[in-house]
Amino acid sequence: MHVHVNAAESVDGKLSTRERKQVAISGDADFDRMDELRAVSDAVMIGVGTVLADDPSLTLKRAERREERVDSGRPPNPVRVVADSRARTPPDAELLDDRAETYVLVSEAADASDIAALESAGAVVVSAGKDRVDLVAAVDELEEHGVEQLMVEGGGELIYSLFVAGLVDRLTVFVGSVVIGGREAPTLADGEGFTDPKNFPKLSLTDVQRLDDGVVLSYDVQ
Amino acid sequence: MHVHVNAAESVDGKLSTRERKQVAISGDADFDRMDELRAVSDAVMIGVGTVLADDPSLTLKRAERREERVDSGRPPNPVRVVADSRARTPPDAELLDDRAETYVLVSEAADASDIAALESAGAVVVSAGKDRVDLVAAVDELEEHGVEQLMVEGGGELIYSLFVAGLVDRLTVFVGSVVIGGREAPTLADGEGFTDPKNFPKLSLTDVQRLDDGVVLSYDVQ
Repeated sequence: MHVHVNAAESVDGKLSTRERKQVAISGDADFDRMDELRAVSDAVMIGVGTVLADDPSLTLKRAERREERVDSGRPPNPVRVVADSRARTPPDAELLDDRAETYVLVSEAADASDIAALESAGAVVVSAGKDRVDLVAAVDELEEHGVEQLMVEGGGELIYSLFVAGLVDRLTVFVGSVVIGGREAPTLADGEGFTDPKNFPKLSLTDVQRLDDGVVLSYDVQ
Repeated sequence: MHVHVNAAESVDGKLSTRERKQVAISGDADFDRMDELRAVSDAVMIGVGTVLADDPSLTLKRAERREERVDSGRPPNPVRVVADSRARTPPDAELLDDRAETYVLVSEAADASDIAALESAGAVVVSAGKDRVDLVAAVDELEEHGVEQLMVEGGGELIYSLFVAGLVDRLTVFVGSVVIGGREAPTLADGEGFTDPKNFPKLSLTDVQRLDDGVVLSYDVQ
């Protein structure tokens, strides 16, 4: 399994405002770059916070990319995955439509009736972990379902948890030319945060590319 | 007055860990770049949070740069400025040593005895604003004292306040190849944060340069 985290942030590391309102950090070229990354992925994963804030569909925007996938024997859209310890994904969420398969990763803390509602809405519910999703076990389970290339689009809580679990192989960040500010605004990596520099994930900057009015920074994670 | 904000952040926009422990985000080449920026500045400004967390001296590291300044009729080190609404700078702070002049910008909320202690320690105390430092008025006052080129080194509360006041002309950020994480860790721009995209400061990316194991992003602020 190869895990690629991709996101767009402001110069000060924010994914959105403190009110979690989605703002246009990147432009058309970066959206297309993201669509291409989705197209080469078996699955696209987000955290439930992003579902609740943005209600994205996570499908491919360009029809040619869906057609190419179908021509090579794959489903038109990548599988969608939500990390959702307590099964808070609304059953009418966009990503539970029928355009792709959707996995919801929950923990034992999730309510059985919420799980049942998600299953009725068509989700495949995978339970791993006691209070929070055990990401290592859940990713193993995804791999058993054929997911080799996993793209993660955020938010910051999920991205941080994946770094803690040592699961991230590659990180690409579009840094938009904007300052959002806010000590409570969500950032690229939230959670508790690392305190000992010995535990900081080791990144290696592999590419720097100007795009739209910003820059894409690419890192390998060691 | 030209205001240049310069800082080093992690890929996720953090200036340090949630415990505000100083961590090495940049390397020798970036430290030297910062020293050069200090050398061409009339004054170097930080917020009191940075004084309390790091106790920096804000003086030039390289002797040649001090000598060059003296040769051109300037003091060996730039003036040091602390934005410190409630006069919390400890009188024994490093930046109150005698290697350069130090201004402490306070508001009317500062205690007279704290102000007196700072003045005894050699600081020039400038009062502007009721509960918080009125940065526009304080910067005007610095200009009257001959400060034309002001460099700001952080932290995120001060940087955000300067953006809100419309005072920032230039922003340079070293993005180190590290993820720190933490929803409570200080970022490049904290404070309340902008909520309406109409109010986001407009930045223009002027330069992208790899340095040490990271990258320096340079922006003009419109």
